Parts: sequence; C-alpha cells; structure tokens
Amino acid sequence: MKEFELIGRLLAPIARAPAARGLRDDVAVWPAPGARDIVLTKDMVAEGVHFLAQDPPEAIAAKLLRVNLSDLASKGATPEGVLLGFGLTPRQDEAWLTAFVRGLGADLERYGVQLWGGDTIQAGERMVLSLTAIGSAPAGQALSREHARAGDDLYVTGTIGDGWLGLQVLTHKLDLPSEHRDFATQRYRWPQPRVELGPALLGLARGSADVSDGLLADAGHIADASDVSVVIKLARVPLSEAAAAWAGDDLPRRVQLATGGDDYEILFSADPAQREAVLALSQRFGLSITRIGRVEAGQGLSVLGPDGTRLAVTTLGYEHG
Amino acid sequence: MKEFELIGRLLAPIARAPAARGLRDDVAVWPAPGARDIVLTKDMVAEGVHFLAQDPPEAIAAKLLRVNLSDLASKGATPEGVLLGFGLTPRQDEAWLTAFVRGLGADLERYGVQLWGGDTIQAGERMVLSLTAIGSAPAGQALSREHARAGDDLYVTGTIGDGWLGLQVLTHKLDLPSEHRDFATQRYRWPQPRVELGPALLGLARGSADVSDGLLADAGHIADASDVSVVIKLARVPLSEAAAAWAGDDLPRRVQLATGGDDYEILFSADPAQREAVLALSQRFGLSITRIGRVEAGQGLSVLGPDGTRLAVTTLGYEHG
Repeated sequence: MKEFELIGRLLAPIARAPAARGLRDDVAVWPAPGARDIVLTKDMVAEGVHFLAQDPPEAIAAKLLRVNLSDLASKGATPEGVLLGFGLTPRQDEAWLTAFVRGLGADLERYGVQLWGGDTIQAGERMVLSLTAIGSAPAGQALSREHARAGDDLYVTGTIGDGWLGLQVLTHKLDLPSEHRDFATQRYRWPQPRVELGPALLGLARGSADVSDGLLADAGHIADASDVSVVIKLARVPLSEAAAAWAGDDLPRRVQLATGGDDYEILFSADPAQREAVLALSQRFGLSITRIGRVEAGQGLSVLGPDGTRLAVTTLGYEHG
Repeated sequence: MKEFELIGRLLAPIARAPAARGLRDDVAVWPAPGARDIVLTKDMVAEGVHFLAQDPPEAIAAKLLRVNLSDLASKGATPEGVLLGFGLTPRQDEAWLTAFVRGLGADLERYGVQLWGGDTIQAGERMVLSLTAIGSAPAGQALSREHARAGDDLYVTGTIGDGWLGLQVLTHKLDLPSEHRDFATQRYRWPQPRVELGPALLGLARGSADVSDGLLADAGHIADASDVSVVIKLARVPLSEAAAAWAGDDLPRRVQLATGGDDYEILFSADPAQREAVLALSQRFGLSITRIGRVEAGQGLSVLGPDGTRLAVTTLGYEHG
C-alpha cells in the first residue's frame, strides 16, 4: 500500500485542474465546454508486449499518453484531460515511479493536457498501463474513418516505418548505421502525435485515422469503414533517411515499413479541390504531408508497386499481440 | 489476433449508441448534454488480486461495471457510457468471452448505460481489466468527499461487511451456515451500486463517497478531505442477518466487517434538518439508509464501541493489494 500513497503524492502536483479535485475524490468532474462534442479514447499497454521493461520510465509514460493523443488528433479533437490506470508490479520502486511521473508531467505540459484522475492497482508480474484521453471537437464535426469518398486524395503526415525500425534495433533483430540507430529508436520511444495539425483538419479531411497498426492496415480500416477502395502507391510512401537507407529499392522491405506500425502519423483523405489547402497546412505546421494515393469506388486496399502493378500484400500490418 | 476480431464481433451488438460509432473507429464521440458536468471514474482490476480466476465471467464483467457505477452514484451522477480495457491471457476462449460479453451486455441494459469503446490487448499471464465510466450531473452540483460539515449526520445505505464475508468464504478462509453462504458470496460477486439513489442525493448529501476500501477507511477519507472529524458508532453499523450471525457481540469481528471493503454502498453526511428527507428517500427506493454517526469539528475518524468509549482501530480498512 505504501506505493499507492507514494504515487498519490507524486501525481498530485501534476494534477492541478479543478476537474481532478486534487486526486482526493473517486471521480473527476469536468464542466464540459458548450457546443462541443466529447471525444474519448482508451489504450492499454502491457510490459513485454507494447513496451520493453528496460525502456526509460519517462518514455513509457510519454508513449502511453502520446498514442492516445494521436487518436484524438486524427479525429480533429483537442485534448482536454486524461485518466491514468496504473497496474504495478513489485519492481517499480520510488526512483522508477518518480521518473515515470516526471515524464508524464512534462508531456502533459507539452501538450496542454490535464491529469484528472485514475486508479492504481497491483497487477502481478507484468506492468499493465491504461490511459483514457478525453478531448473535444466542435459539435458534429469530429472526423471519422467512415467518411472517405471515391475521388478523394489520400495523404499521410511525416514518415512511415521509423517506429518499426526502432523496435527492431531495440530488440536486436536488426542493426543500422550508428547515424540512423538513434533516430529510429527515438521515433519508436517518442512518437510525435500530430496534436496541432489534427484540429486544423476539421472541415478539410474526410476519412481520417492515425497510423498505429501499420499504414496498410489502417488504410484498410478506412476502406472498410467508408465502404470504398483505397489505393496506395508504395513508392510515394514517405520514408526518413534512415528508413530509405535500410530499404533501398527492396520491395519487401518497403512493404515491411508500410506494415510495421507504431508510426502515430495521420492518414486522411480529402477532396482534390483541397490540394492547396493541404499544402498550406503542411507549411503552417512545418510538417510534411504526402499524397500517397487515392480513394476509388469499390472495396478494400490496393497497393501499387513501382511499375504500377498491384502487389499481393497478404499481411496488412502488424497488430500488437 | 483472432481473439481481437472475436471480441469485436461479440461486443458490436451491445454497442448500439451512436457515440460508439459501431466500434469501427478509434474514438467515441458523445454530444454531451447541455448544462451538465461530465463525471468520470476509472477502476482497474487484476486476476488473483481483485477477482478470482474461477469466478463466473458474467460476474467479473458485472462487478467491473458496478464498482465504477458505484463511484458515479456516490457523486450523484447519472451514468452515460463506458470504455472497456480488456487485457487478456491465452486462457480466455470463445466460451469465456461470450459469457463475459453476455454479462456485460445484461448489466449495461440493467443500468441503462452504453458501451462506447475501449481497447483489447494481450496482457500476459494474468487478466487485467480496466473500465472508464462517464456520467453527468447538473452543472456544479456533483457531490464530493470534501463537503461534510461539523454538525452533519452520517449515513450509510444497505448493509456492511457482506462482501468481505463472501470473499472469505470463496477463498476458504472461513465458512458460514449454508443459509448464509450463498447470500454473502452473491454480495461479493454481484454488488448493487446505488445508481437510482445517487442522483436523488443531490442537494441533500454533503460529503459523499462509496464504500469500497472499507467503511472506516472511506469515512476517514471523507474526514480528511472535508477537514472534519467523523464519529461512527460501531453498534449502529447496519449488518445483514448473515453478518450479524457471524459477528454476534464480538467486537473485533464487528470492526472487521467495518474494515472489510467491497461493500459498494453510499456513505454520506447531511444536515440534521434533512432527517425526514432521508427517511423519505429510503422509503422511495426501498433501501435502508442508516444513521451511523455524526460529523464534528476536528480531524480524523473516531469509532465508538458499545459503551460509548472510543476504540483504537489501527487498521482502517483494507486496500486491495
């Protein structure tokens, strides 16, 4: 029980919003902003499955928060508050907990989000963490996977495959030249949710989702939910220098990057009449937004290879166990 | 990954609210009711700590929901929706999952709450479940632990100690006569959150919390949060026939029942001018509401024995490990 008191003491200073009630009550109470919808998401992660026991505690905290903020951003929602579920093992000592809370606090500050409450339990042998993120969007305007339309362009922010590459390096499944190793592991540990861009996509993006399961899997989800066909040109998928150096012209490697997951970029469709508006957003946020394909009538996902032929991609991405 | 698809298929029919987006999106989007505050709570439970592996799946689902609804009720909030975090092990097969979802669906229906979304992961060796419950209350009126005042009466609903007794029976730490055994284990497995009473306490109760850690611990939390002294007369603590038969006049046993936890009753303070209003609520909901003590100026919790002397109660309840 001592850890629970310790966590309460550590968390209280980073839970300053009135909604948190100083973490002294069983609930959070939030006066919701008028004329806005509440947007909610919840992700759980388990030690050894979604993060590595040796990961820095600050990075575990940051990633837990960021993957949820990425979901909100991809729907155009502005993050407001979070509830933290902390399933501990006997191995998290005061130093570990202090570092975790420091990382969480710094990240909440960075993204302007409040800690409203949560729960701490003993979870047994493996840490299991859960975070509920609550955001808001103008009433009726939150984006959805379901609204892609035939004729739309398909875009993705940032670069794809770095998170997967970083995980391979950290688990010693492959190695990269030293100049790329840190970049990739940083991208795995410290995803950059597109929190500022997200709300700017309202009224512009149609189908929208974040890339967590893998670009191809998430594009397939949009196709299914919108009842359209999504076509991606593999050569257009934006790669970092590190990923491009690793993949070269090797087709299976390029497919691997597009199925790896853990990217936390935004994948969205938009009317071709919006091309200039998309370009303007890219410039405004200093963030690359690449047109990688299009939406057509039909069903499912098609991936086109360098010569324009359709590739048979059997494993559409990677689902976290 | 097959289990994830299976769970999605099983859950979709019980997620009918528009906010759930058919569980086909990464978020839930809820048009919050106007002029109301959003009340949020989140509880996690782990196999072997908070529930037993052999518990019926329907009961695990129901209890996970009900402990959260109890938190909302104790703040006077009306439950609206939930997000479910499902940390599975390889042992949950289709029959288990089907029973769990059946139990959850029946309970959501019973309490008029919607499943809005959530997340399913592999959690390793032990099941870990997390639930976020979202409710609403008239703006500015949600109850709190912090508003008990010197001079208030202290009340508790229902009976205290049955959940603890039931757990002892289920873990073979004690036995009861057969006529009481089923009652106690039912109370442990199927708590009755006071969802209807809760909103009726708005404007009447001052300090309010649900009894989850144990009556004395939760009374102590109210005392601390409200910066008052709470005095409980042990002989007034309401016991079921089963608990009364087990405890008799044995003081340590009566203290044990008051510290056991897992009661999910509502503990609240109110102005003595409200005694008739409290009685009327008790009659309206067919639920006993017992005056067990009072609130005084000062600090901390006092427990008075049968002869009116103050008992030295060192362990104020039981925190789930």
